[in-house]
Amino acid sequence: MTLFSKIIAGEVPSYKIAENDKYFAFLDLFPSVIGHTLVVPKIETDRLFDLPDEYLDGYLSFCKPISNAICKAFGVDRVNIITLGFEIPHAHIHLVPMNSMRDSNIVANKTRMSEADLLEIQRRILAHLS
Amino acid sequence: MTLFSKIIAGEVPSYKIAENDKYFAFLDLFPSVIGHTLVVPKIETDRLFDLPDEYLDGYLSFCKPISNAICKAFGVDRVNIITLGFEIPHAHIHLVPMNSMRDSNIVANKTRMSEADLLEIQRRILAHLS
Repeated sequence: MTLFSKIIAGEVPSYKIAENDKYFAFLDLFPSVIGHTLVVPKIETDRLFDLPDEYLDGYLSFCKPISNAICKAFGVDRVNIITLGFEIPHAHIHLVPMNSMRDSNIVANKTRMSEADLLEIQRRILAHLS
Repeated sequence: MTLFSKIIAGEVPSYKIAENDKYFAFLDLFPSVIGHTLVVPKIETDRLFDLPDEYLDGYLSFCKPISNAICKAFGVDRVNIITLGFEIPHAHIHLVPMNSMRDSNIVANKTRMSEADLLEIQRRILAHLS
């Protein structure tokens, strides 16, 4: 069972943003920018394109209202998507708020956030996610 | 009309990989790694999440066989996706072949390729795209 499956099952706590029957979204604990969110399918495949089409289709439209909420919550120009997947063998999309190309380096820009900061970020996104 | 719409219309030449009624895939002229491909929707919106759901759904499953062909053509571990969109106001997904985290920096790793190299890369991907 991957770390993400444990988070989805509630065995490991997370700052949850949204879920449906196929996907689960929660804050990245080491965000590269404020609002950096992970969206994970509720099945385990290592690589994004190992997912069956029924999980690929619907993935981006699930991310859309979350991305819009992040833009509104933090006054960000756009939310972009990045997949990497070399650390946890469970496909996941990074939703990365970006105002410029500089915000794209999610590896170099990792930041340790306090619990209070993460709770406040979660609160602000949820307030814009109706 | 964006550069990508001109490419889709055939007014600007490209190294085409695939298309259907909604999307068009072609080689990035400044690839960060061999096989780096762009997949563009056939409507113009600046940001990815400005696309209507009918274009978001189907986008990743259109990318899947192309990604699998790139992996086979170049013996790559996985193809990841990245959106940025600060240069051309027409949403597009970068398909980026990656063997490690080092391959993720598509901005820093841009390379100028010769026409002969691009034709050979196109030929190898198409050979694995049945």
